[in-house]
Amino acid sequence: MKDLKVAVIGAAGAVGRKVVEVLEERNFPVGELRLFATRRSAGQKIPFRGEKIPVEETRPEELEGFQLAFLAVGAEVSRELGPLLASRGTVVIDKSSAFRLEPEIPLVVPEVNGEELRHHRGIVASPNCSTIQMVMVLEPLRRVAGIRRVVVSTYQSVSGTGEAAVGELEEQVRGFVRGERPEPRVYPRPIAFNLLPHIDSFGELGYTGEEWKLVRETRKIMGIPDLPVSATAVRVPVFWAHSEAVSVELERPLSPEEARATLSSFPGVRVVDDPEKGLYPTPLEAAGRDEVFVGRIRESLAFSPGLEMWVVADNLRKGAATNAVQIAETLLREGLLEPLVRAGGKI
Amino acid sequence: MKDLKVAVIGAAGAVGRKVVEVLEERNFPVGELRLFATRRSAGQKIPFRGEKIPVEETRPEELEGFQLAFLAVGAEVSRELGPLLASRGTVVIDKSSAFRLEPEIPLVVPEVNGEELRHHRGIVASPNCSTIQMVMVLEPLRRVAGIRRVVVSTYQSVSGTGEAAVGELEEQVRGFVRGERPEPRVYPRPIAFNLLPHIDSFGELGYTGEEWKLVRETRKIMGIPDLPVSATAVRVPVFWAHSEAVSVELERPLSPEEARATLSSFPGVRVVDDPEKGLYPTPLEAAGRDEVFVGRIRESLAFSPGLEMWVVADNLRKGAATNAVQIAETLLREGLLEPLVRAGGKI
Repeated sequence: MKDLKVAVIGAAGAVGRKVVEVLEERNFPVGELRLFATRRSAGQKIPFRGEKIPVEETRPEELEGFQLAFLAVGAEVSRELGPLLASRGTVVIDKSSAFRLEPEIPLVVPEVNGEELRHHRGIVASPNCSTIQMVMVLEPLRRVAGIRRVVVSTYQSVSGTGEAAVGELEEQVRGFVRGERPEPRVYPRPIAFNLLPHIDSFGELGYTGEEWKLVRETRKIMGIPDLPVSATAVRVPVFWAHSEAVSVELERPLSPEEARATLSSFPGVRVVDDPEKGLYPTPLEAAGRDEVFVGRIRESLAFSPGLEMWVVADNLRKGAATNAVQIAETLLREGLLEPLVRAGGKI
Repeated sequence: MKDLKVAVIGAAGAVGRKVVEVLEERNFPVGELRLFATRRSAGQKIPFRGEKIPVEETRPEELEGFQLAFLAVGAEVSRELGPLLASRGTVVIDKSSAFRLEPEIPLVVPEVNGEELRHHRGIVASPNCSTIQMVMVLEPLRRVAGIRRVVVSTYQSVSGTGEAAVGELEEQVRGFVRGERPEPRVYPRPIAFNLLPHIDSFGELGYTGEEWKLVRETRKIMGIPDLPVSATAVRVPVFWAHSEAVSVELERPLSPEEARATLSSFPGVRVVDDPEKGLYPTPLEAAGRDEVFVGRIRESLAFSPGLEMWVVADNLRKGAATNAVQIAETLLREGLLEPLVRAGGKI
């Protein structure tokens, strides 16, 4: 296949910029790249392979003739542009929550359920950051020992909220050093030196949207619709990378040693687990990396059989841009980038 | 009983200073107060009721004639001074881990198991900070619904490590603002904008000392020796107050509404739980307060019946000094401050 005509929509945001960066880094066969964003960001230039690509205002009439589009926009915009692009023959990889739980739309972490891409009809959803890193460690354990129950507590960086939140944490920290307390604007309370058990809005049963994503996306990706999963999602004063304390009840015993071996051999997972030598994952070290790091792997004292783990990944990379580009790579490799023909019934 | 002769040993440290502050605040009937610390800190003056009390070097021969002593020192020093003081007729309230798991020594959170104080033989242990706030919410739930299993992830402030760690976080944050990266000295890695799943040293089964404290102290305080409890303890870049995501499997169903009512009526617990109005506990707001704050109370999606909660408390106050002073208040109220007579067989 010759090089592709690719669009990144929402290119001026944290995830959109990272998609452009990852496309270059991974040498994705881009023939032509066009970048779109809101009118406010139009005119910015974003580097790609030594060029500066101008950001254009997103106008539906311009979104024509692409083989592949990355949507790094809010769910509402995705709901409008996703079907439009797909109807024009573009395969859409969507980072928003718009389509993730639609039964006929694949929700994919390539290492975990890449085979779901075979059923796509023009739109593929990439999961939420906190879900991606969790299923990357749950899936290998499931394959060898089965999974019965999951309890997860997250420690999520402000970059997950976007660039304004990164600025807000920095501003509050600078204020602290000057003896001032800048008013929060992005978050409802100060985030510097604080914790907010509040990510996304509050919904059903008192769980937040972020917590429901962890529950429902995990069930869909792993194909276990009734898996008991409980989540507490917490924003922490960290800039980059999300961390998670994951407790899992297994169906069959698996020792920490066996778990380490299983996890080590899973693509994209990196075991960093020699605490006596001071080796365990931290967000500062996971930032900028594509792997999902796991450590503190130990027998659970609550579940028998079960394991406890500490899982850290860069939420903008494997949690967003890298996973989206990996979906594109898989589609390309499997010859799944011709949606209209396929929708016409060839497969 | 007339006013008491009281010693605070380790008075120059974070917890010791807070004990002096809380003794004054709560108007504890101190007749004479003497403060002890290492030679390095001797000569410092610590305010108490408008006076400046000099810190004396801790010398065994000076530790004579006290009715009550607070030990806010490391476990090794406690192991030496605790029995010495007790043998001289002083009732010792020890904040270290030295005696907490000794079967014959009461490990007490007054609201939870104050009745254990009746069996003391001169030494009473105050639990670890992270344990205290957890049992304060588990106990009321246990009384109405029984407890079958607990999974806890902690978010612990640097003040739990001591004053040097508070300085280190501040120094790293100032460095960040200046574009520098000061070398960590207290922690093995940077703590600013980072997370360390490493509190206390690594031990049995790969759990840290802090995690074992949560497991074993909880079992002892609640009197359920085989309670399945699993813990992940994480240091976060917060100055004051510890937070915990607690998942609990119950023996009998209890709705979130019933749990809120139960927790609200438990002394020392404050329910802050109206997320739609933006009300949930945060460490910044819990700092400096004596209550244990609990919010995000919701039905567990992992355990049926079960609950999820977010628990926040000032680790230097209810997690340390306040609990110790409350133990002293209970001993006084119950007439339990005459250890030698009691050891002689009166009770």
